[in-house]
Amino acid sequence: MALSELNDRLRFVLVRTSHSGNIGSAARAMRTMGFDRLTLVAPQRFPDPEATALAAGADDVLAKASIQEDVVAGLAGTTFALGLSARRRGVNIPELDPREGVAQAIAAARRGEQVALVFGNERTGLENDELSRCHAMIRIPSVDDFSSLNLSQAVQVVAYELRSALLADEVTDAKSPEAVPDPDEVPADAEQLERFFTHLGQMLDDIEFHKGRSPVTIMLKLRKLFLRARPELRELRILHGILADAQRMAEIAHKKD
Amino acid sequence: MALSELNDRLRFVLVRTSHSGNIGSAARAMRTMGFDRLTLVAPQRFPDPEATALAAGADDVLAKASIQEDVVAGLAGTTFALGLSARRRGVNIPELDPREGVAQAIAAARRGEQVALVFGNERTGLENDELSRCHAMIRIPSVDDFSSLNLSQAVQVVAYELRSALLADEVTDAKSPEAVPDPDEVPADAEQLERFFTHLGQMLDDIEFHKGRSPVTIMLKLRKLFLRARPELRELRILHGILADAQRMAEIAHKKD
Repeated sequence: MALSELNDRLRFVLVRTSHSGNIGSAARAMRTMGFDRLTLVAPQRFPDPEATALAAGADDVLAKASIQEDVVAGLAGTTFALGLSARRRGVNIPELDPREGVAQAIAAARRGEQVALVFGNERTGLENDELSRCHAMIRIPSVDDFSSLNLSQAVQVVAYELRSALLADEVTDAKSPEAVPDPDEVPADAEQLERFFTHLGQMLDDIEFHKGRSPVTIMLKLRKLFLRARPELRELRILHGILADAQRMAEIAHKKD
Repeated sequence: MALSELNDRLRFVLVRTSHSGNIGSAARAMRTMGFDRLTLVAPQRFPDPEATALAAGADDVLAKASIQEDVVAGLAGTTFALGLSARRRGVNIPELDPREGVAQAIAAARRGEQVALVFGNERTGLENDELSRCHAMIRIPSVDDFSSLNLSQAVQVVAYELRSALLADEVTDAKSPEAVPDPDEVPADAEQLERFFTHLGQMLDDIEFHKGRSPVTIMLKLRKLFLRARPELRELRILHGILADAQRMAEIAHKKD
């Protein structure tokens, strides 16, 4: 896979970045490895001279950065998201090292998917709610007693691994023809999945599933299950149909109560 | 080879660093990967509050940094030196990518050698005279039209590769005992899955989902989806609960028809 093709299918998503200098450093780090698609979710300050200064010439990356309000908007159009995280969290999704994560990201891009690499706030990382929208987590193998990489350093490590993997591919399978994906067999994107989870949550309310249990916990567990399955759009259509029919039954049942 | 052993035989040498912030960032980058032996050759300003601020807690690395006048002094006691360089220079020494370079560094340390990783000035890199004291050159594979990594980013990439190589060694040559899986986190077995699919089929009948569509085709599609997710037993329990509640609603709805 060519670098430009991968770049077209890959975005770096920085979530709630506090220091605009880090945005600039991250842009530079991406650019050195040939990537220029940056999404900023609710940055504290942007644009900012500090970001421009530390981009050190990668101004084009900053100029065309996409600014979004929340992670759902930041992931719009993507079908595969990997979240960077320094430590195990409540969200129990697969934990990959950067090399494994990058291999999965490239495999997804090769199938024509849009991929997101998601980096959290400098101090607090990704919230569970944000991480729960990711299919897997990348953990950079830092030491236990000093585990926190600077944000732009984490971006650099991942961008470097991406480029190294591409270069290794060039060497090994230079002449493999690109597979053309069936558009109906591509996993649903983040927005389509969100609509499904919203519908699922409503249906659980309608059938009175929670009964004192925490809806949040259950939804996180169901999210994890369905993210792992990576449903295709046509599969989501079936699931929506099932949810709608169960809701219809609940409506009749409630009406007649 | 243990991390602490490698650390004892490895130093990071920063040559003529202009920005003391970069010294701090480099110290932090080293520290996250378990390294703390830093040599500063003719730094422009050190110690400096900027270095301390960006070390973000890796003060111990700065506190015991060795300050030297020139590269010859900085390399004293080492037998193997690798110089980072962004581009080919007049000095004709072997050019390695970071993974190859790190493999050679670890091999040398394993033989009991003292190893140096040498990083040049931010703007000018290593002078030919400095590079000529290195046994090989590591080139981080940046793109041609934007090849210059920030100094501390280069340190991070090399430190990360060192640690990754050590961890890979542990996996392959430590004959690690089989991890004992949490019985609750194991994917459900075939019988448990069959019970779930049977239940799912009954529920679809109860909520009148099929309406002339082939139950067989739909069930095959749902099977495929859930098999891909490989549900754990505790996840199946949640799904059974949802199915049962939807059935209960359907029962009330039908009773009152």
